[in-house]
Amino acid sequence: MFMLNERAWRLLYQLVEREEELKVKVSRSSKGALLVDAGVECLGSLEAGILISEMLLSGLGEVKIIYSDGLPHVQVITDHPLYACMASQYAGWAISLDKYFAMGSGPARLLGSKEPLIEEFNWKVREDKGVIFLETRTSPSERVIDYIANACKLAPENLGIVYAPTGSLVGSIQVTARVVETGLHKMHEIRYDIRKVVSAIGMAPIPPVGRDDLEAIGRTNDAIIYGGRTFYFVNDSDDLSDLIEKIPSSSSSSYGEPFLELFKKSNYNFYDMDPMLFSPAEVVLVSLINGKAYKAGGVNRELVRRLFGI
Amino acid sequence: MFMLNERAWRLLYQLVEREEELKVKVSRSSKGALLVDAGVECLGSLEAGILISEMLLSGLGEVKIIYSDGLPHVQVITDHPLYACMASQYAGWAISLDKYFAMGSGPARLLGSKEPLIEEFNWKVREDKGVIFLETRTSPSERVIDYIANACKLAPENLGIVYAPTGSLVGSIQVTARVVETGLHKMHEIRYDIRKVVSAIGMAPIPPVGRDDLEAIGRTNDAIIYGGRTFYFVNDSDDLSDLIEKIPSSSSSSYGEPFLELFKKSNYNFYDMDPMLFSPAEVVLVSLINGKAYKAGGVNRELVRRLFGI
Amino acid sequence: MFMLNERAWRLLYQLVEREEELKVKVSRSSKGALLVDAGVECLGSLEAGILISEMLLSGLGEVKIIYSDGLPHVQVITDHPLYACMASQYAGWAISLDKYFAMGSGPARLLGSKEPLIEEFNWKVREDKGVIFLETRTSPSERVIDYIANACKLAPENLGIVYAPTGSLVGSIQVTARVVETGLHKMHEIRYDIRKVVSAIGMAPIPPVGRDDLEAIGRTNDAIIYGGRTFYFVNDSDDLSDLIEKIPSSSSSSYGEPFLELFKKSNYNFYDMDPMLFSPAEVVLVSLINGKAYKAGGVNRELVRRLFGI
Repeated sequence: MFMLNERAWRLLYQLVEREEELKVKVSRSSKGALLVDAGVECLGSLEAGILISEMLLSGLGEVKIIYSDGLPHVQVITDHPLYACMASQYAGWAISLDKYFAMGSGPARLLGSKEPLIEEFNWKVREDKGVIFLETRTSPSERVIDYIANACKLAPENLGIVYAPTGSLVGSIQVTARVVETGLHKMHEIRYDIRKVVSAIGMAPIPPVGRDDLEAIGRTNDAIIYGGRTFYFVNDSDDLSDLIEKIPSSSSSSYGEPFLELFKKSNYNFYDMDPMLFSPAEVVLVSLINGKAYKAGGVNRELVRRLFGI
Repeated sequence: MFMLNERAWRLLYQLVEREEELKVKVSRSSKGALLVDAGVECLGSLEAGILISEMLLSGLGEVKIIYSDGLPHVQVITDHPLYACMASQYAGWAISLDKYFAMGSGPARLLGSKEPLIEEFNWKVREDKGVIFLETRTSPSERVIDYIANACKLAPENLGIVYAPTGSLVGSIQVTARVVETGLHKMHEIRYDIRKVVSAIGMAPIPPVGRDDLEAIGRTNDAIIYGGRTFYFVNDSDDLSDLIEKIPSSSSSSYGEPFLELFKKSNYNFYDMDPMLFSPAEVVLVSLINGKAYKAGGVNRELVRRLFGI
Repeated sequence: MFMLNERAWRLLYQLVEREEELKVKVSRSSKGALLVDAGVECLGSLEAGILISEMLLSGLGEVKIIYSDGLPHVQVITDHPLYACMASQYAGWAISLDKYFAMGSGPARLLGSKEPLIEEFNWKVREDKGVIFLETRTSPSERVIDYIANACKLAPENLGIVYAPTGSLVGSIQVTARVVETGLHKMHEIRYDIRKVVSAIGMAPIPPVGRDDLEAIGRTNDAIIYGGRTFYFVNDSDDLSDLIEKIPSSSSSSYGEPFLELFKKSNYNFYDMDPMLFSPAEVVLVSLINGKAYKAGGVNRELVRRLFGI
């Protein structure tokens, strides 16, 4: 297996070295943890968003901005969807301490998080360094930093924490860059063996930054659910005709309403929402074995434009 | 502030080191100024056009060729629109000496040009090196080179001059790559505080090289005016509904006619043309503060294809 | 002229150094030839496909994956179409020994192949190293490796052989990346002086990997014939209105049927097929001299989607 944290650290270091150009803010905690603020007390940038997205794939994927069909999109390509998206990028570590809460993503999860996913795939590792991204509007306190370092069994100076709110330039990019991961996660939810997914390409429109994190959560999810396209190459000869219908967001009975509306109806509780909704709008599966291609769903251009206000 | 000339010089040096591959012609003036002909006595290349465009952004932006909607486009992304586009890329220095005339762009403007824009933003700097691009079909003479070096207070060997006609491969790329700058310039014209524009994405179709520089001026302008799309992120909570309507080229009463026709009607004098015309076809503004998105204009695909003859 | 093999060797070396990440298999023959299996006994990857495609252009072009119009495409740009596509990328060397047969492409052709094309353009060279790509499902035997090394007059350790089946991830990418070459080859067939083509941009949709190499041959050809777009800049002032009509695939009387059907009708013999068919769907020629643009053909989106099953 790849040294995911070591790979991610190299990309983290580009953020550090190009601080001014990327409009991020680099500091050290009192115990020496490396902190990169990418949108709380600084503006951040599109390029920081791209770099952070590639860091969250542990460098096992490429993220680009491509103007397509009249809207700027984030495009993601990976030949290691399982490691890049699920072992690394997936925001599966809920960092909850006192009143602090943030979803943690990145390969440090494999060092410190107790997620069932990590158990299931036997991904628990030891590495010398750890990289985590927190989606938050609150800079992590010393206590939070200690908590993460301890959980990861890392000396603080070997821990890198990058953070930015959902409602920021970096937020708009890094969440949208989860389009391939969202589809994989859905496949896993409906019990497809995602180790069979060998390569993937995805894209989703960059949402206007929301006026607050709530609106941003709505728009970044809309970007994927109504505007995301994915193309997965699978090493599988089974008939996937039934499976494919269950993957795109349109397989959910909630499909069609703005994410924010649905979120409200569920009292802002993700776990009360229909899990089938969390998926790209369009999904293609291509078998590397029997040459069959399966497609379901489709992007809803008008809805995306209406929700984005453009 | 960034050392724009130093940054641009690094990209200039790539042109020098890859002379044969990029199909440019490198030489030194008698006093040692570095000269890169990118289309007068050589063919130039698409890649030289891309590199020169990035050099003109002083490396603070990314330029790529993307096939989109059936036509190759130039795509520009920058997180420093003010420095990359206005302080560096804008062709604001009219180099006029004896019978020689060429519009100068690039960061050497901050060293030697007396433009009001540079005064206004207080961009006057001293740097050890200077990089200028001249849009011209005539190689600069020793007298012209001396004039520029003197104006910039540079030893000639620290001056880099890149030049190419509008009607050349490099011309088609580097002018089209001004799509984001054109919109910023227009916003500045209508008195928007462009320091609020923090990031931008733009694209415009690559025009067929004109049969002469006049036709090339027509087509490169048409590419932006009728085919250019731009997406600006602004750090502004004001209501921009009135502003947005004034930005795209369609806000001009001249909109709809080929640029060359309008140029003729103005007796080939840019200053007699409606300044409102010089803008991308489509403009989106996205507020980073209140999440509002504003859109005006739109690309005129049919007109672009007709004017390009494809 | 460029040292094409030396340039290609540098890209070959990236495959070697990133073996695990690119999911290829590197080995040495008993006499020391460098072997990279990119799809026979390994999965290969999209990125390996991109790197191999750039290696086959001898580094004189850029290959990227771009999601466009709802499908992932391969996009190719080169400022040296003659060297990159014809001297290097074209699969003109039929390696036939005992029962082994594979089409060879890459710059080693200039060292060892006896193709009329190489004679015609006087491309025969000597270089210290040689790089060849074999489109095959059978790893080359020691006898085949010796045969190639001898033909190229290379010590075996200076020969690099990369190979992958048509029906593999790498096959889907590297064949589709021939879209610009296919148009050039067609122009050469109809006796246009292709030395006048100075720069080119092309794109074609990535076909689902076929269930076997036969289906893969069908789909990769369909990708170019029905889905490929090309844009050539020519240094030519002649009237090209007659020429342009003969270039796209639609100039063939076979146009419209799936390639595999046509291949069957010709008893799986390429040489019995209409040579006019082998060309991109859409071709644009732009004169750098008189500014004229010529366009013929057009992509057949519905047919492509139907043939790809998406």
